[in-house]
Amino acid sequence: MRVVGIMSGTSLDGIDVAIVDVRGKRVTPVAFRSIPYPSNVRAALLGVSNTMAHTAAISRLNFLLGELYAEAVLETCKRARVPLGSIELCGMHGQTIYHEGDAADFLGRRVASTLQIGEAAVVAERTGLRVISNFREADMAAGGKGAPLVPFVDALLFQHARLTRVAVNIGGIANITAIPPLRRADPYIEEVIAFDTGPGNMVIDALVAHMTGGEQTFDKNGRIARSGKVHQGLLESMMDDKYVCALPPKTTGRERFGQEFAAGLIATGIALPDLIATATAFTVDSIVYQIFRSTEPDEIIVSGGGVHNRWMMRRFREQLDPETIKTSAEFGIDPDAKEAIAFAVLAHESARGRCGNLPSATGARHAAVLGKSSLPQLS
Amino acid sequence: MRVVGIMSGTSLDGIDVAIVDVRGKRVTPVAFRSIPYPSNVRAALLGVSNTMAHTAAISRLNFLLGELYAEAVLETCKRARVPLGSIELCGMHGQTIYHEGDAADFLGRRVASTLQIGEAAVVAERTGLRVISNFREADMAAGGKGAPLVPFVDALLFQHARLTRVAVNIGGIANITAIPPLRRADPYIEEVIAFDTGPGNMVIDALVAHMTGGEQTFDKNGRIARSGKVHQGLLESMMDDKYVCALPPKTTGRERFGQEFAAGLIATGIALPDLIATATAFTVDSIVYQIFRSTEPDEIIVSGGGVHNRWMMRRFREQLDPETIKTSAEFGIDPDAKEAIAFAVLAHESARGRCGNLPSATGARHAAVLGKSSLPQLS
Repeated sequence: MRVVGIMSGTSLDGIDVAIVDVRGKRVTPVAFRSIPYPSNVRAALLGVSNTMAHTAAISRLNFLLGELYAEAVLETCKRARVPLGSIELCGMHGQTIYHEGDAADFLGRRVASTLQIGEAAVVAERTGLRVISNFREADMAAGGKGAPLVPFVDALLFQHARLTRVAVNIGGIANITAIPPLRRADPYIEEVIAFDTGPGNMVIDALVAHMTGGEQTFDKNGRIARSGKVHQGLLESMMDDKYVCALPPKTTGRERFGQEFAAGLIATGIALPDLIATATAFTVDSIVYQIFRSTEPDEIIVSGGGVHNRWMMRRFREQLDPETIKTSAEFGIDPDAKEAIAFAVLAHESARGRCGNLPSATGARHAAVLGKSSLPQLS
Repeated sequence: MRVVGIMSGTSLDGIDVAIVDVRGKRVTPVAFRSIPYPSNVRAALLGVSNTMAHTAAISRLNFLLGELYAEAVLETCKRARVPLGSIELCGMHGQTIYHEGDAADFLGRRVASTLQIGEAAVVAERTGLRVISNFREADMAAGGKGAPLVPFVDALLFQHARLTRVAVNIGGIANITAIPPLRRADPYIEEVIAFDTGPGNMVIDALVAHMTGGEQTFDKNGRIARSGKVHQGLLESMMDDKYVCALPPKTTGRERFGQEFAAGLIATGIALPDLIATATAFTVDSIVYQIFRSTEPDEIIVSGGGVHNRWMMRRFREQLDPETIKTSAEFGIDPDAKEAIAFAVLAHESARGRCGNLPSATGARHAAVLGKSSLPQLS
C-alpha cells in the first residue's frame, strides 16, 4: 500500500511530506519534500499556539492548513513524478497548537489534552485520499500522554533479530527509542523504552540566533561549535539538570529548554562559541548518558536535523564506540523524513484496524487504534 | 442498527442524547434525554465561542466535553434501561464554537470554516462505540456552508409518496425543509429546499429575559404573548426585514437576531407583552411567508422548542389551513429530540459510506460522506 505522511513540527518550519510503500513491516521510501510555511501563516500559527487567540483565527487556520497540506501533497507528487492515483492513504499529523500530556485541574476535573489543527476533510476533498488524522487523542483518552508516537514506528523500522538498537531523533528536542532484539521480546511492543532526553538543537539554535543577531538560525555543519571550546565546569553542572536526571516516562519541550534556558547560559558571560560548543556537547552527552542508563546498545541510529551537525556527530563517535553510531540513511530512511514517514506508517496501521501507540512509551493503560478517518468524495 | 446521537446546540443549554433503531429508511426512537451543562462548563463554553480565548481553554474543553458526552450517553442508557451493548454506533455533533459558512479574507486567501469541540476519541474510549463526529467539515471542503444538515434527515423521515411536506424546526433560529413527494423526484435529494427563515425563539427569549430581569428565559406556553396584543404596524415593518425577504440558500444566527435586534424592539417603547406577542407573530408569519414562497405544502410538521409555545402554535393554525399543521410527535419523533436523532441518522449514513449533505440546502458542489470516524479500543 502506498501511503503519504504529512508532518509539521512545533518548530513551525513548514510541512514535511513523505511518500512510502508499506508491505507488511517493510517500509520503502518513495519521495520526500519539505515545504516551508509562508511567513504570514507561520506568524498566525505562532499567534494561536499556547496563547490567547480569537476562535475565528483557529477555525480559519484549521481550514487554511488543510489547503496547504493538500497543496504540499500535490506538489510532492508532481516534483517526484509519483502519480497521485498510485497513493491509497494519507496520514496527517497536523500542527500542534496546544499539548498538555499531564492532567491539569480544570472546572473541577483533571484534564489532559492536545489540540492539532489542519482540516483532514479538506485534504481528503482536494486529494481524493482517505485521510487519517488526530493521532494523539485516542492515546490520551486511554490515559497516555499522547506522546511520543514515533517509537512505534522506530520499532517497526529498526527492530533486529539479535541486536539491541536505539533510535535517536535530534530535532528541537531529542528523544530515544530503545528497541530490544526480536528474539528477546514477544510481543516486542511491551519492552520498547522511549522518551525525550532533553534538548536536541533547541538550545544551540537559540544561542546561534543570539550570537548572529538572528542572521543564522542554526549552527550549520557545527562550524561555530568547532570554533569554540567546551566549558567543562558548565557542562558538568548542565548534566545535573533535573529533567536529564529524571527517570522515564517523561516528555519535555520549549517550556523547559527554550529562550529562558538559553538566556541563563548567555548570562554566564562565557564566550558564545564556547557556549555553543558546550550546548552541543550537552545534547550529545545527555543522550548518551540516558541511552546507557536504559539499555546496552549494539547500534545507535540517528535521525533528525542533528545528523547534519558534523561536530555533534563527531562528539557522538568520541563518546561511544564509533562503530555503533549510524544515521537512519544507512537503513534507507532519510534522517529528515523520519517523522513524516512515521505518520504514513501509523496511518497504515490504523487503516488496518491495528493499534499504533506503545503504552510503555506514552503511559496509556492500553494500546489503541489511533486517529480519525475522513473519506474523500465518492467517485 | 441501534445508533445513539449526541447534539448540543448554540443555545449552550446542554447535551441531548437520542437512541434510535435504524433499518433502511425506517427510524424508530428508543430513548431521549436532555442533560443540562454544569453552569461552569456553560460559562467556559461562552468564553471560547466566537471570541478571544486561551488555546488551553479550547483544548481542555474539547477533552472535558468528550467526558460529559460519554457520561450523558451512559446516563441515558441507564435511565431508559437500554443496554449500552445493544448500541453499535454513535453520531456526535459536538459544540460549535465558531462557524463562518461564507468565505472571509484570511492571510491572502478566501476561507470558510467551522469549529466544533467535544473529543470523539474520549467518547469512543468510555463507551466502546465507534463514533462519527465533525459532520460539517466535509460539506464545507466541498464548497458548502456546512449547514443546514438536518434537512437530509427531514427528507428521510418525512418524505411522502404523494404529499408535499414541510418540516419546520423552531429553535433559537427557525428553519424549514420543503420535501417534494417521492413520485415527483428521483432522486428526491436534488429537489429538497431547506434554509433558515429567521428567528425562532431567539428574539422572544431575549424580550422575556429583559421583561423579567432574567428570571424567565422563555415565554412558557406562550402566556406572555397571549396577555399582549400584536402591534400590526411593527409586525409589518418587521416583515420587510432584509433577511426574511432574501432568497435562499441562506443561514442566519445570533449575530443578526440576537441581543441587538431585541434592543431595537425595546427602544420602540411599545409595552413588552405587546412586543413579545409581535415577535412571536413575526416568527410564525416569516415562516409561513417563506414556506408559501417555496412550495405548496400539504402538511407542515413542526419540531423544536417552539411546539411548546401554545400561542405560537395557535397563530400557525390561524395563518394556515389548521388541518395541515402537525407536530413531529404525530410522526413518532419527539419534537425536542429531532436534532439528536438527526445526527444518529447521519452517522448511520456515514458508517454505510453514504453521503449525508444536501447540496441544494448547503450549496456544496457535490454530496459528501460526512464526518470523521473514531474507533474504540479493540476488544
